[in-house]
Amino acid sequence: MDETFGQRLQERIRALGPLCVGIDPSASLLTSWNRPDTVEGLEFMSLAVLEASVGSAAAVKAQVAYFERFGSAGYRVLERLIADAHDAGILVIADAKRGDIGATNAAYASAWLDESSTLCCDAMTVSPFTGVGALAPFFARAVKGRGVFVLAATSNDEGRSLQRARTEGDEAVEDLILRSIAELNRRDEGVGSLGVVLGATRDRPRFDLAALQGPYLVPGVGAQGATPEQVGRLFERCPDGTVLVNVARSILETGPERSALRDSVRRWRDNLTTFL
Amino acid sequence: MDETFGQRLQERIRALGPLCVGIDPSASLLTSWNRPDTVEGLEFMSLAVLEASVGSAAAVKAQVAYFERFGSAGYRVLERLIADAHDAGILVIADAKRGDIGATNAAYASAWLDESSTLCCDAMTVSPFTGVGALAPFFARAVKGRGVFVLAATSNDEGRSLQRARTEGDEAVEDLILRSIAELNRRDEGVGSLGVVLGATRDRPRFDLAALQGPYLVPGVGAQGATPEQVGRLFERCPDGTVLVNVARSILETGPERSALRDSVRRWRDNLTTFL
Repeated sequence: MDETFGQRLQERIRALGPLCVGIDPSASLLTSWNRPDTVEGLEFMSLAVLEASVGSAAAVKAQVAYFERFGSAGYRVLERLIADAHDAGILVIADAKRGDIGATNAAYASAWLDESSTLCCDAMTVSPFTGVGALAPFFARAVKGRGVFVLAATSNDEGRSLQRARTEGDEAVEDLILRSIAELNRRDEGVGSLGVVLGATRDRPRFDLAALQGPYLVPGVGAQGATPEQVGRLFERCPDGTVLVNVARSILETGPERSALRDSVRRWRDNLTTFL
Repeated sequence: MDETFGQRLQERIRALGPLCVGIDPSASLLTSWNRPDTVEGLEFMSLAVLEASVGSAAAVKAQVAYFERFGSAGYRVLERLIADAHDAGILVIADAKRGDIGATNAAYASAWLDESSTLCCDAMTVSPFTGVGALAPFFARAVKGRGVFVLAATSNDEGRSLQRARTEGDEAVEDLILRSIAELNRRDEGVGSLGVVLGATRDRPRFDLAALQGPYLVPGVGAQGATPEQVGRLFERCPDGTVLVNVARSILETGPERSALRDSVRRWRDNLTTFL
């Protein structure tokens, strides 16, 4: 793995478009698929969505919570999903939003980003409540071919009071995070491997989004309300291949029928490509 | 389960003292125990620490990261640890620091706090980066006998710039969290079941700590530098039985010898009881 995650992601987005398919096997979606809310249902939906995404999407993103609710049996399904994604050659992102203090973050980074782990993904999401500096063990994996997406501005309204709070330097928390990641990415040539999660439903931060030198993972499109056009405007000045847009519910609601699911993935991909 | 978590915890602290033993089976501690850094080593250390804690500590806290690094096999060990803790009648807290947006938090809450889950604990830690309001699915379990500890001020230095940032109402983020949890606890009689994680290494927040009406989970004592005396001063006006002090490394470094480990747990318990 000589290429960085940032480079690999950019190549995929240029070749396949900016769509990341969110694998969110929730109880309500399993019901709408006429599948039981069990590990068997979980496995069926996860693998069906993966299959529909291969060749049409740049990446898939597994929402870890939906696997964790089945304990170790759910994690076995997640391990199978990750292995199948690696075999199919599609990038897989663990949406884990892990975040703790130093030594604990080293254990989480090892779980999700080390080759030796059964849960090893191409990239993961992390939460910066304990400070961007505490995330160093995750960033250490980014110089070895892995990617990290740090939450900056989440797609929900309740996050604003904290994410817009002003630091001692009179900067919004979300801008502090964006600026810190941009500074870390300067060590890399080309597109860095440290990304940011920025909800498409949010107002534009003060930070110049084109200056991140790394990728954006963008939730909030489709069922959560933002349109591909809005995403296009928000990131209009960003370099080609640095914006990855997650769509989950709007695709998964198509149901289990293979060709319909695959068509839905392609329609979203084409729709996003028009604006990004 | 008619009692609330807040009541059950208060009774345990009054009967057994304020010690929570942190089960942190890290690679370095396994090495110091002359055990392999494998699931077998993980299981050996976890169950040994649990055994040494039963009858002498109010609770144990499992640091989930150290189990997650072994994937589904690590989670099987965690399931065994949780089941054994329930059987032994000791409170068990999942230190998971989970936190996402609405529907995803419902899945995490189900994983860690619903009776039907193999990972079901008495309480868990959650991270408020997405806003205290987004944590509602966790709080919903607290009216059904479970407990939730929300990160407010973590024990590490890197967290200060974010946790001390000022909200629109010119309140520090940590104070906003403490105040929000206190307001939610007012719905309960006596000690509420919504707690806060407050590092013993941190300065006193502006919020009046005695007004939380819920429990504190306090890391940072021992290897991280804070003393039992400091903890006693920080929480001096809090009601009896509402401060639970986590000690992990200082106890685990004792090594695997049973009676020495048990003595170490009791010494820390007695030491804390002097000041709390």
